[in-house]
Amino acid sequence: MKALRFENNKLKLAEISKPSLETEAIVRVLKSGICNTDLEIVKGYANFSGTIGHEFVGVVEEAEDAPDLIGKRVVGEINAGCGRCERCLTGDARHCPARTVLGIVRRDGAHAEFLSLPSRNLLEVPEEVSNEQAVFTEPLAAAFGITEQVQIFPETRIAVIGDGKLGNLCAQSLALKSRNVSLIGKHKEKLSLIEKRNIETVLLEKTKNLPEDFDVVVEASGSEGGFGLALDLLKPRGKLVLKSTFHGTAKWQAWRVVVDEITIVGSRCGRFAPALELLKNKKIDVENLISEELSLSEGVKAIKRAEQKGAMKILLSMTN
Amino acid sequence: MKALRFENNKLKLAEISKPSLETEAIVRVLKSGICNTDLEIVKGYANFSGTIGHEFVGVVEEAEDAPDLIGKRVVGEINAGCGRCERCLTGDARHCPARTVLGIVRRDGAHAEFLSLPSRNLLEVPEEVSNEQAVFTEPLAAAFGITEQVQIFPETRIAVIGDGKLGNLCAQSLALKSRNVSLIGKHKEKLSLIEKRNIETVLLEKTKNLPEDFDVVVEASGSEGGFGLALDLLKPRGKLVLKSTFHGTAKWQAWRVVVDEITIVGSRCGRFAPALELLKNKKIDVENLISEELSLSEGVKAIKRAEQKGAMKILLSMTN
Repeated sequence: MKALRFENNKLKLAEISKPSLETEAIVRVLKSGICNTDLEIVKGYANFSGTIGHEFVGVVEEAEDAPDLIGKRVVGEINAGCGRCERCLTGDARHCPARTVLGIVRRDGAHAEFLSLPSRNLLEVPEEVSNEQAVFTEPLAAAFGITEQVQIFPETRIAVIGDGKLGNLCAQSLALKSRNVSLIGKHKEKLSLIEKRNIETVLLEKTKNLPEDFDVVVEASGSEGGFGLALDLLKPRGKLVLKSTFHGTAKWQAWRVVVDEITIVGSRCGRFAPALELLKNKKIDVENLISEELSLSEGVKAIKRAEQKGAMKILLSMTN
Repeated sequence: MKALRFENNKLKLAEISKPSLETEAIVRVLKSGICNTDLEIVKGYANFSGTIGHEFVGVVEEAEDAPDLIGKRVVGEINAGCGRCERCLTGDARHCPARTVLGIVRRDGAHAEFLSLPSRNLLEVPEEVSNEQAVFTEPLAAAFGITEQVQIFPETRIAVIGDGKLGNLCAQSLALKSRNVSLIGKHKEKLSLIEKRNIETVLLEKTKNLPEDFDVVVEASGSEGGFGLALDLLKPRGKLVLKSTFHGTAKWQAWRVVVDEITIVGSRCGRFAPALELLKNKKIDVENLISEELSLSEGVKAIKRAEQKGAMKILLSMTN
């Protein structure tokens, strides 16, 4: 089968054998989405070698321990725990110390014709959700997961920093809980994608006019500057949600966090079930985030497109 | 009156006029305590000029708006809010943006024969609490305040990093709520001060043997290394309480906070009333933290003593 792989510090489309793990379900991938994490991996930041990609929708071809799933259209939670440790036994495989992560940590990923995952990781996609929408389940789960970590009320004042895909999904998710969401970004055209959702948009250069009294600020820009801006915008005892994994070591003024008694909440993955429910009920716009769809065989080119300025979500299709 | 002042980048004992603000209470100071923040101020880190010191016990001499307080032995909350902003009106003068802070921000402090504070800042000291103990009300309030920011259960696994005064008070405070508290430090003799309180003590060089599964880690060492160690010791989704205001910009690996979904809680001041209650009921040992008591006129020397390795709390007495 075809697979988009990063090996020996090189990205290439390779022909490899189809997965055939008897203990896992085999999924025929229909579409996959390129995430910024894929771009970080391709830069060599994540020490990963293998098939990349972790956002997908597909059809189950084999599932020995869950025959009901066969033929179903599914998405899949990307963390596969050991199933035996304390974390796994309490239902939190996302933090299992021995976990593998689809296309990120010691597990071949989704930019391929087939992938394997434990059947317990798979969720059926409701028929109201298109393939294009379903690919957004993983990033939407990560964005909506914030609302399970930080209490949001209708009057909570929230700023999201970063007008890329993740920032957009975070702002939309938070706007379902709060009337006071602002999205801050550098790009007029990206900010304009969200305007109809009743979210205030603010160009980065205009943030000096914002009152420094936000209850919650989400850093989703992936830049060190975003972290400093977040501290500037928060009120005392406010909460800073760190959503993007910028690499390298950031500098920060720890004393400001202490003096203003700021809480910083690291936030990575979220649960898929609520995200699928949001997509089913058309609560979140995702299709306008798609810049382009290419075929898997154009995978290397697709990654280059995703790296270009202004790109939003690039999809890969395995069916054309 | 005599006052220990930091002015024009110099520490000196000065003769200045007694405070005489009609809108505030005037307190005759009995004893004051030297805090590490005083040492930072004297290094010029805090941009403060005036009388230093913020830990004290004294007797009220004047209080126009609260005559019942006159003659009472008191301690005082160190943050004085404007009394008119949203923060002050909701009872949180500690975060009033226009606040002054005793001996720290635009307000003469406690290493002096007299000080002034709004009468609403003063709390009467129960007779069971000695002057020496009462001086610890402020740092104990800051330590015990952690339990109001982070939920602690009897089984919560907690590590406190730093065997100085603050770390010691944090460990003792947390041990009132949890059976599983470890204090980590560099100094055998400082660690030994806490042993009878059923707190495990661990020398810094032995931390490699500790399991990395703490629910809560308190950074009270004031060093950048303490922050890194705290991240190493936490379990996924654990909480890192930042208690000390180390200056300069620290470096940190933000991605670790995201991937492990760590929460960092900045923590500065706490409420005085619970701290006085703890001292009254002998729940916390503070007297064994006192290294030495000097008279106010030896203030400059006392600061030098406090800067020496191995020093714990140095008290100043205004009555001898």
